[in-house]
Amino acid sequence: MVKLRVHNLAVSLDGFATGEGQTFEAPFGHAGGRLMEWFFPTQTFVSLSGGEAESPGAGTQGVDDALAAAAWKGVGAEIMGRGKFGPQHGPWADEAWRGWWGEEPPFHTPVVVLTHYERPDLTVGETTFLFRALPPEDALALAASVADGLDVRLGGGPTVVREFLHADLVDHLHVVVVPILLGRGVRLWDGLEGLDERFDIEVVASGSGVVHYLMTRKDRGL
Amino acid sequence: MVKLRVHNLAVSLDGFATGEGQTFEAPFGHAGGRLMEWFFPTQTFVSLSGGEAESPGAGTQGVDDALAAAAWKGVGAEIMGRGKFGPQHGPWADEAWRGWWGEEPPFHTPVVVLTHYERPDLTVGETTFLFRALPPEDALALAASVADGLDVRLGGGPTVVREFLHADLVDHLHVVVVPILLGRGVRLWDGLEGLDERFDIEVVASGSGVVHYLMTRKDRGL
Repeated sequence: MVKLRVHNLAVSLDGFATGEGQTFEAPFGHAGGRLMEWFFPTQTFVSLSGGEAESPGAGTQGVDDALAAAAWKGVGAEIMGRGKFGPQHGPWADEAWRGWWGEEPPFHTPVVVLTHYERPDLTVGETTFLFRALPPEDALALAASVADGLDVRLGGGPTVVREFLHADLVDHLHVVVVPILLGRGVRLWDGLEGLDERFDIEVVASGSGVVHYLMTRKDRGL
Repeated sequence: MVKLRVHNLAVSLDGFATGEGQTFEAPFGHAGGRLMEWFFPTQTFVSLSGGEAESPGAGTQGVDDALAAAAWKGVGAEIMGRGKFGPQHGPWADEAWRGWWGEEPPFHTPVVVLTHYERPDLTVGETTFLFRALPPEDALALAASVADGLDVRLGGGPTVVREFLHADLVDHLHVVVVPILLGRGVRLWDGLEGLDERFDIEVVASGSGVVHYLMTRKDRGL
């Protein structure tokens, strides 16, 4: 049975998953890189960003790395919000924008991009982006159908994750609480009163200062 | 030098330090006892609530207990908001209300109760409540003057703690994040963007599922 999994979703101590003012230059707005500083030193990130070619095995291998790496295990498709693909709003002015990731995006699977403005499928490297206007249930069905029997990763942003949590479609939720106070931006937890009752929750503090929350839906063993 | 310390301030994962709808029967509103469930099994709480007389040494002695106990070490006065003293608003209808704690409140020191409506000092057991309309700086000066050379504890609620954090008067802040989502109530962290830059932060996850954040102001060794 295909599971829907969220990994490495970082929020500030005051609950913001992105800062204010997303632009091409600042995908996390005024948060800058601060929500992901725990991730950058990991072997997982170094490898994803091509650093391994220069120095094989570089990067940390502690709990941050182990949990970060889990995001790429057994995943056959991703669902993401349009804001993760790019900072544009409204109808596409053109189709020149091919995502933040250059010519070899790190997904290597089909990616369903949720948007009110559909456009033709786009293949970049080993990743094919499918731009669809679909409610959560149908987006999950589409992603599952192209995931080759593997799980589906829900890649964010926070608004999209919240919608899927509201629809009770998320089986595994890995949230990383970073000890900073952003004060403004997009909150992850709004309107999710009682969510904890539907999940088993494991909590791990890392030496880096972040805290990992591993939430597994109670009616679904993982 | 007198320090101002906050201890055992529990917030939900979505940042609420009390729920909605505080009443005489429900001091934490719809949160009920859920924000303090980590505290009730500790030796510190059992002792405070009189359980020790029945079974000496009862209660847990893990990290939750050790950190909870620190709130009573070296403290000579407390400052609290009126909402911690009682659920009344506006002018006092009468002076019959003597707090939630019965005839021996657990403070055993002077307690400055911040209120727009002053009333005569009230002594209950070994605790004297001073009802004062003072801004944070003056409240701290008063509490320090009656603390017998010891520190001052800032006892909450969250609105009062936030005001003292805004005024940069807090030297030590111990926040306990409880893995529940309350959805509504009074937020602790609102409007405190960048607060983390003024504090050193130590993070400890407990087996009970809560996470302790120990924040020490950078320019004040504790």
